Amino acid sequence: MASDYSSSPITLNDLNPKVLKCAYAIRGEIVTHAQTLQQDLTENPGSHPFNEILYCNIGNPHSLGQKPISFFREVLALCDHPLLLDRSETKALFSADSIEQAIQILDQIPCRATGAYSHSQGIKGLRDKIASGIEVRDGFPADPNDIFLTDGASPAVHMMMQLLIGSENDGILCPIPQYPLYSASITLHGGTHISYYLDEETGWALEISELENQLKTARSRGVNVKALVVINPGNPTGRVLAEANQQEIVEFCWKEGLVLLADEVYQENVYAPDKQFHSFKKISRSMGFGEKDISLVSFHSASKGYYGECGKRGGYMEFTGFSPEIREQIYKVASVNLCSNISGQILASLIMIPPKVGDESYESFSAEKEAILSSLARRAKILEDAFNSLEGVTCYNAEGALYSFPRINLPDKAIKAAEEAKTAPDAFYAWRLLNATGIVIVLGSGFGQRPGTWHFRCTILPQEEKIPAIVSRFTQFHKQFMDEFRG
Amino acid sequence: MASDYSSSPITLNDLNPKVLKCAYAIRGEIVTHAQTLQQDLTENPGSHPFNEILYCNIGNPHSLGQKPISFFREVLALCDHPLLLDRSETKALFSADSIEQAIQILDQIPCRATGAYSHSQGIKGLRDKIASGIEVRDGFPADPNDIFLTDGASPAVHMMMQLLIGSENDGILCPIPQYPLYSASITLHGGTHISYYLDEETGWALEISELENQLKTARSRGVNVKALVVINPGNPTGRVLAEANQQEIVEFCWKEGLVLLADEVYQENVYAPDKQFHSFKKISRSMGFGEKDISLVSFHSASKGYYGECGKRGGYMEFTGFSPEIREQIYKVASVNLCSNISGQILASLIMIPPKVGDESYESFSAEKEAILSSLARRAKILEDAFNSLEGVTCYNAEGALYSFPRINLPDKAIKAAEEAKTAPDAFYAWRLLNATGIVIVLGSGFGQRPGTWHFRCTILPQEEKIPAIVSRFTQFHKQFMDEFRG
Repeated sequence: MASDYSSSPITLNDLNPKVLKCAYAIRGEIVTHAQTLQQDLTENPGSHPFNEILYCNIGNPHSLGQKPISFFREVLALCDHPLLLDRSETKALFSADSIEQAIQILDQIPCRATGAYSHSQGIKGLRDKIASGIEVRDGFPADPNDIFLTDGASPAVHMMMQLLIGSENDGILCPIPQYPLYSASITLHGGTHISYYLDEETGWALEISELENQLKTARSRGVNVKALVVINPGNPTGRVLAEANQQEIVEFCWKEGLVLLADEVYQENVYAPDKQFHSFKKISRSMGFGEKDISLVSFHSASKGYYGECGKRGGYMEFTGFSPEIREQIYKVASVNLCSNISGQILASLIMIPPKVGDESYESFSAEKEAILSSLARRAKILEDAFNSLEGVTCYNAEGALYSFPRINLPDKAIKAAEEAKTAPDAFYAWRLLNATGIVIVLGSGFGQRPGTWHFRCTILPQEEKIPAIVSRFTQFHKQFMDEFRG
Repeated sequence: MASDYSSSPITLNDLNPKVLKCAYAIRGEIVTHAQTLQQDLTENPGSHPFNEILYCNIGNPHSLGQKPISFFREVLALCDHPLLLDRSETKALFSADSIEQAIQILDQIPCRATGAYSHSQGIKGLRDKIASGIEVRDGFPADPNDIFLTDGASPAVHMMMQLLIGSENDGILCPIPQYPLYSASITLHGGTHISYYLDEETGWALEISELENQLKTARSRGVNVKALVVINPGNPTGRVLAEANQQEIVEFCWKEGLVLLADEVYQENVYAPDKQFHSFKKISRSMGFGEKDISLVSFHSASKGYYGECGKRGGYMEFTGFSPEIREQIYKVASVNLCSNISGQILASLIMIPPKVGDESYESFSAEKEAILSSLARRAKILEDAFNSLEGVTCYNAEGALYSFPRINLPDKAIKAAEEAKTAPDAFYAWRLLNATGIVIVLGSGFGQRPGTWHFRCTILPQEEKIPAIVSRFTQFHKQFMDEFRG
């Protein structure tokens, strides 16, 4: 592209080629185009055949109207402005247990200073709370010194990639389809992305034989494979791994000497009644593997779950099975950025120790939580049915996470039309959908898909009352699209 | 160091060598040792010749007792828990202008959702506020599209290094002494750190001839020099650049085709009555350089200034003089991490548009601000005088920032003793100081210093009433140290 910044010292050719190579589809061109359409709609209402943009591209619940959990926000507000705790009016505005929790948290912080940099792993008292929450979840001990609080899960993933990747000779096994943070981070750090395919035919199953094949092939090419990424519940697949499958994965990592990088950010988003989330730490401990047998990192985030607090950038990683010398290195890297944001740290602790029976907020908290989770389950089902009713579309049920990931068998004529438009067939479909309906989805190619297959990811996050209209807009678009291109 | 993690797949040798090489002195071994001492003091009071640890290693004002600016915290609390705005009791607890500001901010956010991911550059309405604050500060236009909100300044610096450094052939000019984030980030991204020395003899002046020499030498070695880092007000030197000197620097970058990376996080920390902060953008614009003539990045942070809100991780960079194609690349990299934390974004906007004359909070806000800044100025002066009164120590006055950076002429016997203890002389001094007094400082070598000279950085942040005791402990230690080692 031409630019008239002729005296600017830096051109595209001067940039880090790894940056140029990196791709991140969740906020790609199609989203930028959607933002332009949204501005159009504001400035010229009626200028498009829809009156709002529906961002189904990203797991961002509050942006589509989901309300925050009141208890969490009460505690955050009190920690932000602790002088409120000295005022009698506060009792009328805040629940007794949010006041108590805020006092407890502030007492854990030197000088009660929520405005100070904390320990680079996060405030010790909050890590204690998180560790106790993990113990309750797993039934196995957790150590606060194994917790690193981070600004959401993304920086934690980058930190691990930075630690493990020294050159392009270092490889990371990643699923296809995957959440593109992984491919982007591997590219930015200059490593080799080794794909293993999830098997769509059997409900996106993770087959050990596929892991073995890809590992063998990579090693035969001389790649030093360092780690395996597993996303459970799956993004974008929405599938929840069975316990026996998780055991095989742990066994595989142990046998092959791989670090297991477990993306467990959707641990509280499980809708299928016959499925349950088990952390890889719990699985490995229940198989008898101890701290020194297997290197495991579990990523968690305050952005997902029933809370969906994306903007707070709270999260943590639990980091087990690494020697003290390696911990020192990761601590050093964390310390260069000083610490993660304190509100996010507080929130990450709250999601691991929410109100319990008997607390003043318990009932309202549980009601808010249940309303969100049951509505998400209903929305997942409605969208699954809707997608499956479309011509040429098949879609597994979202057992968990926040996404549907349907497959479209596009007619040859559409594939040809895409070719003529110099774009990929799934991109062709997604752009058409956006321009016709205002619905933003992410192309399957953003996550990776078997060559010759086409998918898209659509979040289940639009508010429930809007779903029927969305389904009808989507269905109508799809019908017209197929009518236009059917052979 | 030996480890019994014998079956762990990853050893130190498997890690990214750039991580192993990276150093960050602000939270190095001495701080870890201080934390151990602090625990000792809690568990066994009286176990050391002091009763508290004084962290003078890091610019972390709230951790030493500085109180947050009430107005900022009021707004943050209201934005965290917007339901408060519907309650009548709120008027008794919050100022009218904090309520108004919170409503205005929430109105800028789609769905008023402070829990949603924002645009990857930050919420547009907040960028508008920041741009208008910059215009008031500089008297030149600022564009909200040039603002990238970040989790403090550190991730912004990393982002720029990631963008500019593709291999070890890419070089960045950095001052000696420097804030070690820069050296750490250059090392982590695999670039070449080209040092230019500030001239201690003339009050840490930045001499253009030195820049020219270092640039020439680097280029003759085949290094592709991409950018110049300037920290103003200086960290660790505490010096404020004169306007004429800034003009020379801009001219130099323009002539040599270098990106100017301006660390301006201490812009509100200027104590010398004859000095004033000028942004490099203002300087370049007032010299007649326009958007397309010079590539300039200004880093700012909510962690410093009179507010000192380190834990909120709020900050921004203003990014001017880059072509649209390069902006796309930086936007893409920012989008991989989705967005910076919303509370930090809000705070970064508040520091740029604080209460103004006539607002209900204006008087109390101004009183809080003035009390902090005038106390910092007094503390800087007391510490300067105290350091200058020590045998063999010389120290320039801190015109700005939050630090003293004295030079110590250590006796030969001390240098020899350090050698025998297999440590650097400045480290030897700093460890002795910590063990004798509980005062934590950072070694000059952490920032870089001319070979054969020794320095340390000490923040001016302990609360004013504690300063006399600190000075007396420090003085007594220094006297004993010199008595022990004087030739």
